[in-house]
Amino acid sequence: MAHFTVEYTHNIEQDADLPRLFADAHRLLADTGVFPVAGLRSRAHRLETWRVADGAGDYAFVHATFRMGHGRDAATRRRVAEALFALIKAHFAALQSRRLLALSFELTELDPEMSFKHNNIHQRFAS
Amino acid sequence: MAHFTVEYTHNIEQDADLPRLFADAHRLLADTGVFPVAGLRSRAHRLETWRVADGAGDYAFVHATFRMGHGRDAATRRRVAEALFALIKAHFAALQSRRLLALSFELTELDPEMSFKHNNIHQRFAS
Amino acid sequence: MAHFTVEYTHNIEQDADLPRLFADAHRLLADTGVFPVAGLRSRAHRLETWRVADGAGDYAFVHATFRMGHGRDAATRRRVAEALFALIKAHFAALQSRRLLALSFELTELDPEMSFKHNNIHQRFAS
Repeated sequence: MAHFTVEYTHNIEQDADLPRLFADAHRLLADTGVFPVAGLRSRAHRLETWRVADGAGDYAFVHATFRMGHGRDAATRRRVAEALFALIKAHFAALQSRRLLALSFELTELDPEMSFKHNNIHQRFAS
Repeated sequence: MAHFTVEYTHNIEQDADLPRLFADAHRLLADTGVFPVAGLRSRAHRLETWRVADGAGDYAFVHATFRMGHGRDAATRRRVAEALFALIKAHFAALQSRRLLALSFELTELDPEMSFKHNNIHQRFAS
Repeated sequence: MAHFTVEYTHNIEQDADLPRLFADAHRLLADTGVFPVAGLRSRAHRLETWRVADGAGDYAFVHATFRMGHGRDAATRRRVAEALFALIKAHFAALQSRRLLALSFELTELDPEMSFKHNNIHQRFAS
């Protein structure tokens, strides 16, 4: 199970194209060999009320988090984190070239003991 | 203080019935004896833009988190986690029997030192 | 990089004035000397579906989190946490004097290794 979450300010709605980012992210994550594609979940949170820095400029921001199952070694986690953030930077590069846009990213692990799942999507992929 | 958060994809809006899930969850949590009912907070986040797996099926997902005050032992935390996830599975069982639906859950603890509260709801329950 | 997030129940929309809270918070955080103003990001999540306690009263709640870069000592983190929560309490004091309102707050740190950023806002402040 791996959870990708992207917060974005409402003023980049026309350019953010989150469906494409999520499609690209799932392909990238599946290609790492670390995650079965069936366990990937992404979601966006559009932010209506927000502030960046001094609030004085025409700012925007995108903050992404990736929360993955516990137990992969640090090198693997770093490889995943760097690949995902590289994708995010590429996805927003054109937009960032023409406006003030802050991108940030954090990878964390799910709790090793207290994380559960129950679904019928893996079956579809197994069959 | 205990925080229950449920993310759900917009395509199950008609069936999710979060108000009932939250009512059942608060009753269950109060009945554990671990949490005073006055300290329970639940909220849903409806997801408009999201992706599951390869995006090729009529998928849906529900991801729930429970963040509780620090300091209960592991057995207590596990008991709470399992009871809550059993409730979630029961709540969505009928829906999951007829569509591709992924349920997931994580329990974590609030920071032991840097978590504060200030409210006038406990007073109502004390009086 | 520091992320301030405020969840609030929809029934206090008219009184919450999050833009003012965020402006005050960014000023306070910049004044601590701990954070460059360019790295501050705030956002609100309006909650449409939620429950407090037994659901029987005209309750409301505000839950705020502050996630800051790793590495400041505990005394600094505590000073920041207490200053921010004092601001939140002051911001909502008038509202809390006339209705049942629960305020809560948690400060946590970003992952020390797996947190990245890429932006052109700091440049604006440097120039």
